[in-house]
Amino acid sequence: MKLLKNAAGRMVPDQVNGREQIPYKGVGKYIPDANRHAPRIASCANYPANGDKRLKDLKAALEKSGLRDGMTISTHHHFRNGDLLANQVFDIAHEMGVKDLTWFPSASFPCHEHLVQYLEDGTIHHIEGSMNGPLGQYVSEGRMNGTGVLRSHGGRYQAVQDGEVQIDIAVIGSPTADPFGNANGLSGDSACGLLGFALADSQYADQVIVATDNLVEFPCIPWQIQGNYVDHVVEVERLGDPGQIVSGTTRITRSPDRLMLAELTARFCDAAGIIRDGFSFQSGAGGTSLAVGEYFRQIMQEKKIRARFARGGSNQYLVSMLEEGLVDYILDGQTFDLDGVRSMAENPNHVWTSPFTSYNYHSKGNFAGMVDVVILGATEVDTSFNANVVTHSDGSLLHGIGGWQNCLFSKTVILPIPLFRDRIPVVKDRVTTLCGPGELIDVIVTERGIAINPLRKDLVEATRDSGLPIKTIEELKSEAERICGVPRSAEFEDEVVAVIKWVDGTIIDAVRKVRQE
Amino acid sequence: MKLLKNAAGRMVPDQVNGREQIPYKGVGKYIPDANRHAPRIASCANYPANGDKRLKDLKAALEKSGLRDGMTISTHHHFRNGDLLANQVFDIAHEMGVKDLTWFPSASFPCHEHLVQYLEDGTIHHIEGSMNGPLGQYVSEGRMNGTGVLRSHGGRYQAVQDGEVQIDIAVIGSPTADPFGNANGLSGDSACGLLGFALADSQYADQVIVATDNLVEFPCIPWQIQGNYVDHVVEVERLGDPGQIVSGTTRITRSPDRLMLAELTARFCDAAGIIRDGFSFQSGAGGTSLAVGEYFRQIMQEKKIRARFARGGSNQYLVSMLEEGLVDYILDGQTFDLDGVRSMAENPNHVWTSPFTSYNYHSKGNFAGMVDVVILGATEVDTSFNANVVTHSDGSLLHGIGGWQNCLFSKTVILPIPLFRDRIPVVKDRVTTLCGPGELIDVIVTERGIAINPLRKDLVEATRDSGLPIKTIEELKSEAERICGVPRSAEFEDEVVAVIKWVDGTIIDAVRKVRQE
Repeated sequence: MKLLKNAAGRMVPDQVNGREQIPYKGVGKYIPDANRHAPRIASCANYPANGDKRLKDLKAALEKSGLRDGMTISTHHHFRNGDLLANQVFDIAHEMGVKDLTWFPSASFPCHEHLVQYLEDGTIHHIEGSMNGPLGQYVSEGRMNGTGVLRSHGGRYQAVQDGEVQIDIAVIGSPTADPFGNANGLSGDSACGLLGFALADSQYADQVIVATDNLVEFPCIPWQIQGNYVDHVVEVERLGDPGQIVSGTTRITRSPDRLMLAELTARFCDAAGIIRDGFSFQSGAGGTSLAVGEYFRQIMQEKKIRARFARGGSNQYLVSMLEEGLVDYILDGQTFDLDGVRSMAENPNHVWTSPFTSYNYHSKGNFAGMVDVVILGATEVDTSFNANVVTHSDGSLLHGIGGWQNCLFSKTVILPIPLFRDRIPVVKDRVTTLCGPGELIDVIVTERGIAINPLRKDLVEATRDSGLPIKTIEELKSEAERICGVPRSAEFEDEVVAVIKWVDGTIIDAVRKVRQE
Repeated sequence: MKLLKNAAGRMVPDQVNGREQIPYKGVGKYIPDANRHAPRIASCANYPANGDKRLKDLKAALEKSGLRDGMTISTHHHFRNGDLLANQVFDIAHEMGVKDLTWFPSASFPCHEHLVQYLEDGTIHHIEGSMNGPLGQYVSEGRMNGTGVLRSHGGRYQAVQDGEVQIDIAVIGSPTADPFGNANGLSGDSACGLLGFALADSQYADQVIVATDNLVEFPCIPWQIQGNYVDHVVEVERLGDPGQIVSGTTRITRSPDRLMLAELTARFCDAAGIIRDGFSFQSGAGGTSLAVGEYFRQIMQEKKIRARFARGGSNQYLVSMLEEGLVDYILDGQTFDLDGVRSMAENPNHVWTSPFTSYNYHSKGNFAGMVDVVILGATEVDTSFNANVVTHSDGSLLHGIGGWQNCLFSKTVILPIPLFRDRIPVVKDRVTTLCGPGELIDVIVTERGIAINPLRKDLVEATRDSGLPIKTIEELKSEAERICGVPRSAEFEDEVVAVIKWVDGTIIDAVRKVRQE
């Protein structure tokens, strides 16, 4: 393994977990010359003639799927911190004495800290997927045997489609399913809305297990996961903790600072002419993003206009905009609360999407580019408008990428962020970990001013006389440093503990082991 | 090219149009050892950043798709005899001077007789797809340059998925579409219900053109065809003749003979215990099949039971059963009238399916096996319960296979057919063309008696004391011959003009050139 300097000037490994890697070449610069992954041709002759694929339990399904050393096992994260399934899968693998597995979740959460024991004892060799919280910390400390691989939602679809990751066994937690394997997330005790993060797994995995705690008679309608891709169906007692799946606690921020960020962001969009009849937007589920949506609502009501569609992450606020006719369609990637689940089940204009439709960069286009404005977060930005979403300024890997990288292809990308957090400036000379190239990031909104990427002359021009506090990114940085001082950089050892993939499968940056104090 | 005897005793070619072929090996006996077709990996970098894939017209799209000699061009048949698009495609190819194309429609109709000129002048080398009417006659006369290849709906999906047919350019007529290529058949002047027959084409073709006469703003909801698979979008003046697409003329037979067949069929099902609460059925769009459905309705109303689902071919009769609560779900493959289209657009329990979900044999199961009883037609059956649906007793290739072969995997397969047509017995010693193996065909219902396949001891037992006119298949044949005389066999030359694929891609029979009088 050697390190190469990629097009962003970052040193990245040429091999990860024994596989050759391509260093990042720039936005839109790497065009693959290959074919998609081709799964084996199945035959109905090998499946039950009556369509009933049930086995007695999860262990039986894992055994029948041929679980053995070195395999790649995937799960999805629609149950978020309420997931009870992934831990069971590896409990069984451990019990069976299987070793060196790769866990390929669409994301992991604090509830998966249970798996640290299996990283320790060799049941799991490494994790490819976003690691939120304890598992990220574990990786940052250099304790995982293999190297972590972080991908965006779209990048995960791309990796599976392109055969970069070949899933041996996909275990798809399904809040409702029939014995054939048709499944959806719309009802049942573990309802989570949709199952889009498991789509690639169902299409491309060698063996697909649907696990459900709400078995219904065929046909399970709608089939978000198609039973034709499914090998085995098992019933489990509980897939998840409903209180943690759709917590119903998504709330708009009450922090005056954050409300100010949100209001500035909305005013900027208005001044820039983005909020017009038939526009489209995406804003996340964080408190500030939700507040931006509410300011959009006020502006739209005043102007008597409507949005053609909102992408998201749905929640009660977005659903109410749909129901009030302010938004024609919600194109939804995951539901964050019970209103989101209800609306998706009831309203044909609340549409379930997938990383394939919305985000896959190795596709004939995707939805991200059609969104007029997207509001995202970041842990750090730098004076070249590069941004970081995975590591904190202390260097610890604590967050996943989610759809963040994919959304950067939207027409205007705005990051409303505080100028400093815990007296550490957020605007720096160089981000600790590069997740998104500055050329795709258009506007940084802070409580002390708004910086527009000079590449976006149109936005500079449109907001020149807006009365908004437009500054340069360097001015923002200086202001932060005047208040907080110049921050000390995080200290790392040489060891690469994780890599960050760009949307095309190339490596945009590496995460190094944090030097222990 | 040499001829081999397949497992059904039919002599079939080992090569067709220059490609090696596998002779039929028996039901469930051929298990492929290969991978699915892997399309090239695309990149968003090569598609418009704003998602607008429109080109000025169909010719521009065909040119941009690289149309050239020897390519395979696909179309779908949801517009049935009202299709105006396929002819335009080949008019343009002819105008461009392109030669030796393979036309790969999901089916062709009399409206495509226009294309005979292009078969004559070498623009089209041969047709792979069902040929209803004039094109079938043309092939039977030995006039096509290449060999026709007939597949079931499921077999067509299988062939594309498995890479047996590699589509260079798919042209998908789309009654509603957006500039990104999302499309559906639910509204617009050319509304045809669904677009399932074009699903494989969209997923696997190298270049995909969506042609629409009803362009809507993104997003076109629902997306039966996903724009992420689409290369180009063009507007055309008219895709089809609405009067011919959903003619609204599907009517239950008034013929007393056929009504009797239908009633006998329904009585048989009732006696056999098939019509029970939660059962499922599929019956076609022909007058007799529709009448069977109506008799089912009466029985269900009397018994106060409901069906879990009906597969089909939807029409006003099936829709009314859904709306009256007699059927929980319609799992629909194509809509035959305006009520079908309306219901599919309005009613979430009227579900659009595809040859992938319903029929693909090279899949991890499909829906066909879950249907309790299916009512089908046939041009001929023989004393081994083998059946023919493509040629008439005079040997002419006049019909497609449709979903017929795929439906044979249902739990009980019943063919209600007249014992003779135009004084030619329908029950013979040996069918002219073998389309379905007798082991999958359970019951032949004629106006002069019902024959149960001896393999189905359970049905024999269940209906023993039913009072129904149960006879042996030999008795039916003798009775027909007593009335009509022993029919003269059709006379053929040696030349193979078309082959019939089984659901697994093997060749179950060959069609030979009809000897001209």
